[in-house]
Amino acid sequence: MTDSMTPDEAERHRAKMARRKAVQDAEVASKTLEKGLLIVNTGPGKGKSTAAFGLALRMIGHGRKVGVVQFIKGAWATGERTTFERFGDLVEWHSMGEGFTWETQDKARDIAAAAKAWDKVLAMLADPSFSLLVLDELNIALRYDYLDLGQVVAALSNRRAGLHVVVTGRNAKPELIAAADLVTEMGQVKHHFAAGVKAQAGIEF
Amino acid sequence: MTDSMTPDEAERHRAKMARRKAVQDAEVASKTLEKGLLIVNTGPGKGKSTAAFGLALRMIGHGRKVGVVQFIKGAWATGERTTFERFGDLVEWHSMGEGFTWETQDKARDIAAAAKAWDKVLAMLADPSFSLLVLDELNIALRYDYLDLGQVVAALSNRRAGLHVVVTGRNAKPELIAAADLVTEMGQVKHHFAAGVKAQAGIEF
Repeated sequence: MTDSMTPDEAERHRAKMARRKAVQDAEVASKTLEKGLLIVNTGPGKGKSTAAFGLALRMIGHGRKVGVVQFIKGAWATGERTTFERFGDLVEWHSMGEGFTWETQDKARDIAAAAKAWDKVLAMLADPSFSLLVLDELNIALRYDYLDLGQVVAALSNRRAGLHVVVTGRNAKPELIAAADLVTEMGQVKHHFAAGVKAQAGIEF
Repeated sequence: MTDSMTPDEAERHRAKMARRKAVQDAEVASKTLEKGLLIVNTGPGKGKSTAAFGLALRMIGHGRKVGVVQFIKGAWATGERTTFERFGDLVEWHSMGEGFTWETQDKARDIAAAAKAWDKVLAMLADPSFSLLVLDELNIALRYDYLDLGQVVAALSNRRAGLHVVVTGRNAKPELIAAADLVTEMGQVKHHFAAGVKAQAGIEF
């Protein structure tokens, strides 16, 4: 494809990209704040927890400590948990959920598990050694009113200045979205489960 | 909250969840296929590459080998790359991009870099030791016609039966989406850059 470009075309491309770079550089220069972000990954599509764990991976790469509290899933996420175990004290992982609500079939137990998980979060929020907290499926616990929404949003909003927090799960509450800095909605365009493909190691768990 | 639930309410919850579990179990049982998936993470929101690297993390946790080819970004993604380096031969990482098109300002060089990156992909597709390939920002190279779309889709569609492939980047081509098993569109609900927050270690890189 290279040889089909005339010197004129190549120069026009260069000039266009130089203008684009100037715009880009000005935009980057205009962003000067540093702050711990409240990040929400929601929506019906895949990748909410996966992206949160990908962020954890990135943070660990910078030698910074990550805390994970799983509100619902426990037995799942075996792959990433095994990987994170290699990093010793850089990752503190708590799977507090007892499974999906249709697995436990016991609302009182689900509420007690959510409260216990939230206590872990409060302890981590008070511990300055963490750079990132992943609150996996917290949105589910909020959706079923297992936790007090006002208290959760207040605690997350009042986090230390440098602390990043990622909350995952479908149906994020509007109050949480309002308090967040970065919200991504994972939309499902196409899913292999619909084609009869089952959950596989390395993909779903 | 627990003590506000009457025995009747608790029983109704249990019965409802038992019905839901029966539906869920039947659904899980109906999915019997195992296959290597072609996964596309696209859309304007954050988390496309991050979720792909999260998937890599999960795969490594199962002791399976992952190949990464970065088509555009090179200097970025420092955090996850450092983390993956700990896993030795389980991750083979190639940053083939020379940066964004407005950084290089040289279309011929961009096309040559994309062709070189694609050669790496072809080599990995032919190597049965890989369980997952992450083709980071391949969609960008396709969007700018740096690679032949028909050849790319054909090669990915003809991958080995067990091989999973994740393609990331905005503006995925319809032909690629048609060939994919799982497509997620990351939508941007709210972004901290708009509030003047700059790119930070552990979050953007």
